[in-house]
Amino acid sequence: MAGPDLDELVGRAREGRPRAVARLISLVEDASPAVAEVARRLTPHTGHARVIGLTGPPGVGKSTSTSMLLTALRAAGQRVGVLAIDPSSPFSGGALLGDRIRMTEHATDPGVFIRSMATRGHLGGLSWATPQAVRVLDAAGFDVVLIETVGVGQSEVDVVKLADTTVVLLAPGAGDGIQAAKAGVLEIADVFVVNKSDREGAEATVHDLKQMISLSRRERRGASWRQPIVRTVASKAEGAEEVVEALDAHHAWLTAHGELTRRRTARARGEVEAIALRRLHAELTDLHHGDRLSELAARVVTRELDPFTAAAELVADLKQ
Amino acid sequence: MAGPDLDELVGRAREGRPRAVARLISLVEDASPAVAEVARRLTPHTGHARVIGLTGPPGVGKSTSTSMLLTALRAAGQRVGVLAIDPSSPFSGGALLGDRIRMTEHATDPGVFIRSMATRGHLGGLSWATPQAVRVLDAAGFDVVLIETVGVGQSEVDVVKLADTTVVLLAPGAGDGIQAAKAGVLEIADVFVVNKSDREGAEATVHDLKQMISLSRRERRGASWRQPIVRTVASKAEGAEEVVEALDAHHAWLTAHGELTRRRTARARGEVEAIALRRLHAELTDLHHGDRLSELAARVVTRELDPFTAAAELVADLKQ
Repeated sequence: MAGPDLDELVGRAREGRPRAVARLISLVEDASPAVAEVARRLTPHTGHARVIGLTGPPGVGKSTSTSMLLTALRAAGQRVGVLAIDPSSPFSGGALLGDRIRMTEHATDPGVFIRSMATRGHLGGLSWATPQAVRVLDAAGFDVVLIETVGVGQSEVDVVKLADTTVVLLAPGAGDGIQAAKAGVLEIADVFVVNKSDREGAEATVHDLKQMISLSRRERRGASWRQPIVRTVASKAEGAEEVVEALDAHHAWLTAHGELTRRRTARARGEVEAIALRRLHAELTDLHHGDRLSELAARVVTRELDPFTAAAELVADLKQ
Repeated sequence: MAGPDLDELVGRAREGRPRAVARLISLVEDASPAVAEVARRLTPHTGHARVIGLTGPPGVGKSTSTSMLLTALRAAGQRVGVLAIDPSSPFSGGALLGDRIRMTEHATDPGVFIRSMATRGHLGGLSWATPQAVRVLDAAGFDVVLIETVGVGQSEVDVVKLADTTVVLLAPGAGDGIQAAKAGVLEIADVFVVNKSDREGAEATVHDLKQMISLSRRERRGASWRQPIVRTVASKAEGAEEVVEALDAHHAWLTAHGELTRRRTARARGEVEAIALRRLHAELTDLHHGDRLSELAARVVTRELDPFTAAAELVADLKQ
């Protein structure tokens, strides 16, 4: 895509035109040759959006909760972009797409933009594509970017780490409670939401969570943010305001403690690293039109070389 | 670890002493500074072991099937090493460890070595550590290396791709059938095992699988290997011999068609790439004692630089 066309596209996206936003996300998601140019043009217009991650085990009502949160944020006058990450697992890939249909009530609202991110087969996967898409939505003037992902793998967690604020959803009942969630969740959660809180077992889930939080606080002294636990019934839109309040409180805390800049620097650091690594990876596999790596691999199979010596030769070639 | 100690350790591992094998795997899994030296010393002794991957959705009886297969292979006089990969998800990490207990019947057999691989937090994760551990077991003289993993994420699939032969386990019933497995499985499976085949729905699962296989064969003409479907009841050790026969048939096919070398070259290629990338990644983050990346990230946050320009500067520094 030539420069003037790109300028026009960026201009239309900044006017909030959904087709231009969608087109830009496609460009960056596919890592098209234009991706660096797109980032260069968008960067000056970024830094406004609050990035909120939302995750939790399957079955807790993530899509319903996202929809509820969308309604509440819209009522508060916020423009919201949603990135819905489909797990790329060959065993469950795309299985949750049906849930997206619930979001159709927001489809005609010009203040809402919803995008399902396809991830399978992307080099660097989610960690590559998601920050690029966040940049597009930020530059397009969305006040909030919601990243919704099912919390099943490390890559999903890595994506949620991109957020300024991470919401972890739980629900009472077998497999959905904190037994299913494990200790790692405590480390990434800024706000806990116990959904389906009208169901049996909700009290026990909240109680267990409180215990886990106080245990973890003993380990990380000095952190002055106390993760709140909000009870919701997303299907009845109960608790929406409390979730928004918790998000606002966390954002105020982030700003007051310099933590917002720290998190965004960590995010930028990860992104710069990912771009540099992707570039180096491409250079490695392209060396001598790809022949160098194949030749080294063949010599490893015949045991003429061990793979570390082969890798050292490859890196030396790259630096020449 | 100094050279002579390492030589001694490798010597003891090659005599089949389990503690020496375990110690070597720990060294390579943790990517200790000795890892390249270990690989260098082991490489001349490798190339003998058949690497078999075993995966499938949760609940199909992977541990029981692994145990059954172990018994059958041992009866055939094979020494078997097992790498049991625990999912590194913060939501399910380690949840399956209890299943390992079932394997205790093999714990006192000197012809069996079982290792649970801890993966969370490793840079490069499974794709890094698993080939290293396979090399240790191969050099230690195991005839078969079984990699058992729950098939929930892309990284697990990547690991199973390391195998000479990949077994995909399914079982009848909700969530365990091919509905849960999706099309991606067809691409990685060399042998299908329908476990719990005494249960209702087993016929339907086999029937569905047959249809999927014949559909996929139409797309990949020329591939002369027809994925067999073996029915088992692992809890009663039914079907063990048929699985071993299918594995042997696939190995013979791999050898006859030059496919074994092709797969092992692809594996070596992936490993050399991973080692080179890890090294480049370490160099990137170490540039100017880590200050360079932090400084660039800070300039991205203030929008002075876009992340692609920052990454280009980082790569240029690396090559200086």
